[in-house]
Amino acid sequence: MILCDIGNTSVDLFIEGQRSKFRVDDFDPATLRDDVYYVSVNASFDDRISQYPNWHDLRERIDWGKYYSTMGIDRIMVCEAVEEGVIVDAGSAITVDVMDNGSYKGGFISLGLQSAQNTYARLSPALAMSFNFEVDLAKMAKNTPDAITVGFLAPLIEKIERLGKPLYLTGGDARTLERFVSDAVVDHDLIFKGMKKLLEKGS
Amino acid sequence: MILCDIGNTSVDLFIEGQRSKFRVDDFDPATLRDDVYYVSVNASFDDRISQYPNWHDLRERIDWGKYYSTMGIDRIMVCEAVEEGVIVDAGSAITVDVMDNGSYKGGFISLGLQSAQNTYARLSPALAMSFNFEVDLAKMAKNTPDAITVGFLAPLIEKIERLGKPLYLTGGDARTLERFVSDAVVDHDLIFKGMKKLLEKGS
Repeated sequence: MILCDIGNTSVDLFIEGQRSKFRVDDFDPATLRDDVYYVSVNASFDDRISQYPNWHDLRERIDWGKYYSTMGIDRIMVCEAVEEGVIVDAGSAITVDVMDNGSYKGGFISLGLQSAQNTYARLSPALAMSFNFEVDLAKMAKNTPDAITVGFLAPLIEKIERLGKPLYLTGGDARTLERFVSDAVVDHDLIFKGMKKLLEKGS
Repeated sequence: MILCDIGNTSVDLFIEGQRSKFRVDDFDPATLRDDVYYVSVNASFDDRISQYPNWHDLRERIDWGKYYSTMGIDRIMVCEAVEEGVIVDAGSAITVDVMDNGSYKGGFISLGLQSAQNTYARLSPALAMSFNFEVDLAKMAKNTPDAITVGFLAPLIEKIERLGKPLYLTGGDARTLERFVSDAVVDHDLIFKGMKKLLEKGS
């Protein structure tokens, strides 16, 4: 069984616990002969694989009554991985979702670290600086790098912590956010764990 | 006595409690004969007024030991207006500063409402929507407009409220933020009040 996460630019495979990543344009779906269970946000790739009967869209197995119709498929999958907790997927956006005894309680979407930093830079040359990840978020800032870092991260981290549930971090900036929380599981395979659980549920 | 706030695109005058606003390019400093006390972030305008002896830069009167050298002059002025409280200036950025018994305790800088909304739209067409200012920030969201509104505003508003001091809101989005806080003074003239207090202190 092969799990596959298809983004706009990359194809991420999970085969027997091993991940491998390809550029969408370089990847030929015909090379995979086993059953492939996938989630995709890439409509043109969906068209390409529609001719392969061994490729199965996990979208069809989701209990949509549990989530909402415009919710990102990646968010749903990381939620499926967790029975009880707050799931933070820190990528180009930071999604925060709450699972309570297997039931989805809603969530919210913050800007990603890179996009926030870029936006400060666009606002003013005076704010065009890197976040200071050594900053103490509990303190009010008295210089510009700290002021933008505290401004973006302190409210978000405190909000996440106040949700008061076990915390799961995934996505490219998971390790950066981990520095600022008291206790969290960092799991870069969370999406594939969710896909696997969804498959097992259905069978 | 005339007070004047010079931005990159506009000149904001405060004369006997009345405000009037001009485009920088349309404004001729020679038209004002009384003493003008100004703050400016506009270096080319500074050059134009340097020849007029009745124009006085308030930057020279600031006690810089109290603030920090790269802190925006507008932020310093709204702080000067308040002895005790949290001052939120909600414009293209949202600055949050803490004054404690006349002493500056630091602050932070968040993105402005419009810039945040624009950045969500840039991240994904799925997030290109307006904030929903009717949302209940205490609830996790189950649709996309609520998810980005809660994601941006709930952490920020909760952080501001937890600072636990009297709250002053100023800037173009002050009224929007006011909806979400339990108690606040909205004062669009805060910067001029700060300038006036600074002047009175010096004399």
